[in-house]
Amino acid sequence: MSKLMNKNSSNTMALAPNTSSKRETVCIFGTGDFGRALGHKMIQSGYPVVFGSRSTQTSSLIPKGAEVFSHAEAAQKAAIIIIAVQRQHYNFLIPLAEILRGKVLVDVSNNLKINQYPESNAEYLAQLVPGAKVVKAFNTVSAWALQSGTLDASRQVFVCGDDMEAKQMVMAIVRALGLTPVDQGSLLAAQEIENYPLQLFPMWKFPILLSLGLTAFFFFYCLARDVIYPYVYENKDFSFFIAISIPNRICPILALILLALVYLPGVLAAIIQLYRGTKYRRFPDWLDKWMLCRKQLGLVALAFASLHVLYTLIIPIRSFVRWRISSRIVSQALNNKTEPLNTTNAWLSDSYLALGILGFFLFVLLGITSLPSVSNNVNWREFRFVQSKLGYLTLILCTAHTLVYGGNRFLSPSSYRWYLPNAYMLSLIVPCIVLVVKFVLIFPCLDKPLTRIRQGWERNPQYSEQSNYIINKSAV
Amino acid sequence: MSKLMNKNSSNTMALAPNTSSKRETVCIFGTGDFGRALGHKMIQSGYPVVFGSRSTQTSSLIPKGAEVFSHAEAAQKAAIIIIAVQRQHYNFLIPLAEILRGKVLVDVSNNLKINQYPESNAEYLAQLVPGAKVVKAFNTVSAWALQSGTLDASRQVFVCGDDMEAKQMVMAIVRALGLTPVDQGSLLAAQEIENYPLQLFPMWKFPILLSLGLTAFFFFYCLARDVIYPYVYENKDFSFFIAISIPNRICPILALILLALVYLPGVLAAIIQLYRGTKYRRFPDWLDKWMLCRKQLGLVALAFASLHVLYTLIIPIRSFVRWRISSRIVSQALNNKTEPLNTTNAWLSDSYLALGILGFFLFVLLGITSLPSVSNNVNWREFRFVQSKLGYLTLILCTAHTLVYGGNRFLSPSSYRWYLPNAYMLSLIVPCIVLVVKFVLIFPCLDKPLTRIRQGWERNPQYSEQSNYIINKSAV
Amino acid sequence: MSKLMNKNSSNTMALAPNTSSKRETVCIFGTGDFGRALGHKMIQSGYPVVFGSRSTQTSSLIPKGAEVFSHAEAAQKAAIIIIAVQRQHYNFLIPLAEILRGKVLVDVSNNLKINQYPESNAEYLAQLVPGAKVVKAFNTVSAWALQSGTLDASRQVFVCGDDMEAKQMVMAIVRALGLTPVDQGSLLAAQEIENYPLQLFPMWKFPILLSLGLTAFFFFYCLARDVIYPYVYENKDFSFFIAISIPNRICPILALILLALVYLPGVLAAIIQLYRGTKYRRFPDWLDKWMLCRKQLGLVALAFASLHVLYTLIIPIRSFVRWRISSRIVSQALNNKTEPLNTTNAWLSDSYLALGILGFFLFVLLGITSLPSVSNNVNWREFRFVQSKLGYLTLILCTAHTLVYGGNRFLSPSSYRWYLPNAYMLSLIVPCIVLVVKFVLIFPCLDKPLTRIRQGWERNPQYSEQSNYIINKSAV
Repeated sequence: MSKLMNKNSSNTMALAPNTSSKRETVCIFGTGDFGRALGHKMIQSGYPVVFGSRSTQTSSLIPKGAEVFSHAEAAQKAAIIIIAVQRQHYNFLIPLAEILRGKVLVDVSNNLKINQYPESNAEYLAQLVPGAKVVKAFNTVSAWALQSGTLDASRQVFVCGDDMEAKQMVMAIVRALGLTPVDQGSLLAAQEIENYPLQLFPMWKFPILLSLGLTAFFFFYCLARDVIYPYVYENKDFSFFIAISIPNRICPILALILLALVYLPGVLAAIIQLYRGTKYRRFPDWLDKWMLCRKQLGLVALAFASLHVLYTLIIPIRSFVRWRISSRIVSQALNNKTEPLNTTNAWLSDSYLALGILGFFLFVLLGITSLPSVSNNVNWREFRFVQSKLGYLTLILCTAHTLVYGGNRFLSPSSYRWYLPNAYMLSLIVPCIVLVVKFVLIFPCLDKPLTRIRQGWERNPQYSEQSNYIINKSAV
Repeated sequence: MSKLMNKNSSNTMALAPNTSSKRETVCIFGTGDFGRALGHKMIQSGYPVVFGSRSTQTSSLIPKGAEVFSHAEAAQKAAIIIIAVQRQHYNFLIPLAEILRGKVLVDVSNNLKINQYPESNAEYLAQLVPGAKVVKAFNTVSAWALQSGTLDASRQVFVCGDDMEAKQMVMAIVRALGLTPVDQGSLLAAQEIENYPLQLFPMWKFPILLSLGLTAFFFFYCLARDVIYPYVYENKDFSFFIAISIPNRICPILALILLALVYLPGVLAAIIQLYRGTKYRRFPDWLDKWMLCRKQLGLVALAFASLHVLYTLIIPIRSFVRWRISSRIVSQALNNKTEPLNTTNAWLSDSYLALGILGFFLFVLLGITSLPSVSNNVNWREFRFVQSKLGYLTLILCTAHTLVYGGNRFLSPSSYRWYLPNAYMLSLIVPCIVLVVKFVLIFPCLDKPLTRIRQGWERNPQYSEQSNYIINKSAV
Repeated sequence: MSKLMNKNSSNTMALAPNTSSKRETVCIFGTGDFGRALGHKMIQSGYPVVFGSRSTQTSSLIPKGAEVFSHAEAAQKAAIIIIAVQRQHYNFLIPLAEILRGKVLVDVSNNLKINQYPESNAEYLAQLVPGAKVVKAFNTVSAWALQSGTLDASRQVFVCGDDMEAKQMVMAIVRALGLTPVDQGSLLAAQEIENYPLQLFPMWKFPILLSLGLTAFFFFYCLARDVIYPYVYENKDFSFFIAISIPNRICPILALILLALVYLPGVLAAIIQLYRGTKYRRFPDWLDKWMLCRKQLGLVALAFASLHVLYTLIIPIRSFVRWRISSRIVSQALNNKTEPLNTTNAWLSDSYLALGILGFFLFVLLGITSLPSVSNNVNWREFRFVQSKLGYLTLILCTAHTLVYGGNRFLSPSSYRWYLPNAYMLSLIVPCIVLVVKFVLIFPCLDKPLTRIRQGWERNPQYSEQSNYIINKSAV
């Protein structure tokens, strides 16, 4: 479709002939980039368009088929007026109040900063022209996208307003332009709609900051153990470990910790519900927020796991590794001895690799099912099966991968430098806690009351006596 | 958008003011989790909501802005009544039959098992209250998703009902809540709609069971050849092969067989059509079902291929492989001989690896184009080009990869242990059959009649004489 | 949903009962595959359907519930008539002109070639029956998809027509069938809509042809340097390099060049805008086209980068590489010398690998965000952040990867064979130009005027004096 639209926009336009068109005239105040682009798109979709402007001379930039009038004249020709003017110029509308009475004013403006003004632009507009019906819309669409037809980012247009009929009229236009209107309620939602295009991955902020902090901590931890310690005590220069060896320690650690942090809030919530004996009290705010960014946490964990895989697979090509292997073989040959195969080592090495491969494979599956178009094609039972059952299996496999990797080095004193344990040991703390608590919660003596609580049962029904009565008696 | 909605739900609500709202009142019977969540969402979207309940005392859990009445009172205030009550309590509606006459009753219920009752809940409801217009809807949406706004799983709401107008009214509400209504026809479809949320990947069952069966067979086959045989005859302990070596034999075998099984039904269908001389007779049931799960078969094959790639790339890191290489080099050094480069071996090794890489690359491309959002952006010609042309190329490359991997070992007697051929030889049977038959079908003497049959021509037009006449004379 | 629909189509149909149905009768001219499939689907969705045909005998293939009449009789029973007949038979409609006056005729036809006729089939139909309201629709849907319910390819139905009301009626039917109508404007758009299903990845043509050309050039270049040169001067047979070594030189080169070509048009556009001092003049045509296929160029580059990663990771398994390493170690052992670790080499090797891993990782992230369902969930600021900031970071990392890979070999005369530099040196030209020009453009003395130009400012406002006045004074 984008192909078709691209062609559409670059070649001859399919203008709707004037004769049979039954669409209502739309007025646009403001002939800037956005006003012109919107007008252009509307004419394409068969709307007669008039522009309202201070200067009524038609410029070459005004889309063909549109006429330019004074603000007052243009407003009289249409029931819907799109205000494609910046907020600081809104006061030119005050003298027009009488003409605008009963008209639908569409606020398309955006700000430069989040919460720049105390009230949203749309609410400000409604205060300035109290007789008009203000609808907020189109602010999430860019002029460039409208003109070029390459709507690669969102096709969704958030719409809000206090007047239902006015909102319906605007949503019909949105649909006619090939976009998807999303009703966000009354004009109170305008503030959020205006903030939306200014957001930069708000749900990702916490996971990314957390992982940056953990990365920094583990970087210096590994630097001390693996580069500074050998330099101080053995006078060896392993500074090049910074490029691959240390990142390949940090990545699996972060992947494992972040994956465990995806499942930790779930077990915390279960404990809180069991302790309170009801599900009808809100969780603490931090837990609520944590639960809402679990998907993002999981995807950041997957990113670290992918980097770990790449860093690991590249190992045999590293010149340091080739040097180490060849010097080991040469010394074997010179000492005239051949080592026999150590079956235990072969078992340990192969099984930790196999666990890692299977864990990563399931992790990628989880990532794929979190793609919007995939998750949109599964029902709730399937979604929960993948995200919960497969998720815990992934966590178990990845934890086992790390445990077997450690092998019998846990107790060896040589792995403690400056009394610091190997970094991967630290990474095992959170996942082991999550798995142990989850294992305990599966026992029937805890699982049964938890299930009942989640179905609406309350131990001390103090918070919602009537509703509980209703639930148990007549309704679900 | 989900970000916006999340915020919406956690922060101040944008409630529609009562003054200008023109949306019709909706009544909800039942104040359980789902009824409350739906009411909450509807109030947000500007609908006045009344709850019908046995106990009319307002609880703290009822969403703000909603009122609670007795069932009879509440029903009188609205044209649409949502029955958020479990099926076993439906008989409380019988005394209300007179009040419910002509009203739209929306059945939102789900069952605990597939086909739990002889008739669907919605049809049962229609029998209980014959004067009402019953519409099935909303059962695929969860209370939790409505409340939290995180509609990660499907936004689709399946709607069915016998009364067109009632269905349109319900679909308008669905749209207003930001969900996507999908009309599924008359109330007869309710059974399927009620079963839908209980399904767990129904299309995946056959591919996964088949691959589990094949995996088990090839596991024991390889175990016998690669672990038990050397243990019995050479007293060598290769039990650690279970972790990586044997999985890395099974995965490519299953990937190849399953990929061939994706294309086998197509050539079978062509043979049947050629034999029958018409396309107007239904295929046998098993073939129909097989053709409908080709996508799933292909994706399972891709999963096995991905595992094969990971297992293969990890090879040089395995401690067993490192031991084998180093002991070989040490023995070369001790015997004081340097092997010259065997160009034939280099050719064989490099070309089987290159074929595998290209085959896997195309396989991943096929997988990406089967993502719903990607396949939704291509037209039929493009979709068929990718899935058929690129698909066969993938099959050819992967079969060639396996053939070249075998190299000159096919005839070597040492590769037959206990008269069992190498497992990969078995995997070549199905793909070779598919490719040979497809190659034969490309010959013009078979391709021409097949194309004509697929365009509607019949050799013995016994089954649809008139229609054929029509097709050839006046219409397509 | 597709699961549900599949079942729907194979099992019992949920036919709408005649009693309460309020949908208007639809007439279909033509009882071929497509007409029957469409009729079948419409009956499922509750529309009464009549077929118009020369022969009025009902065949077994006509969907149950539909009746067959003569063309004239059928047309009188419905306001909407779907013309499921090939264009060359359209003249049978001329005698029916009087009956068809004021009716909505839906043209569903497709051609066999792009631009097969001077005017589109729909426009031809409108000329033949001037009294009817012609709407183009449904041509992008296949009969097979309608029948089987497996709408794997696009659900979008492009609709165009001169009469708004007629278009709305057709779009309502499209929606009722569970498909998504997309309004493409007046009947002039029919030509494009008819060409759409015949296109085969039109946006991909240029990127793929370009990369094929570059691949051929670099293949022969590397063949000369790496296979023919050693054969001529050293009499060594490295012909097997064709399988892996040479592809693994070509892939990274093409990935880097194509990635740079994604960002080159952006800097060219900036230079043109700075030179002209305005953004209101169209770019040259080639630049416009180049900018529209940047996404496809980037994805082809990603494909080459992925192949490069696979080819590189497979290196240690190649029999040639194993032979080279082992012969080197054996000769070391025989000469009784152990090489010390070269820290500079370790640094160079590890950092070029690390740069490559990070570059590839970001490249894959860019690819994932270009998936339609992902890019649909980000706002413009986020989309631009990823595609521009992360994109340039990727380009910088990949260029640095290639530069460090070269290391100190740039000046070594031994790397020039037949005066030809190493192929990777050629690949650095375009990315280095892009990065240097971009770096220059960041300087405030150039960045400030560029930003002002992009906000609408003009150095010599000769092209749009009035509009500029408007922009600066009252509007955005």
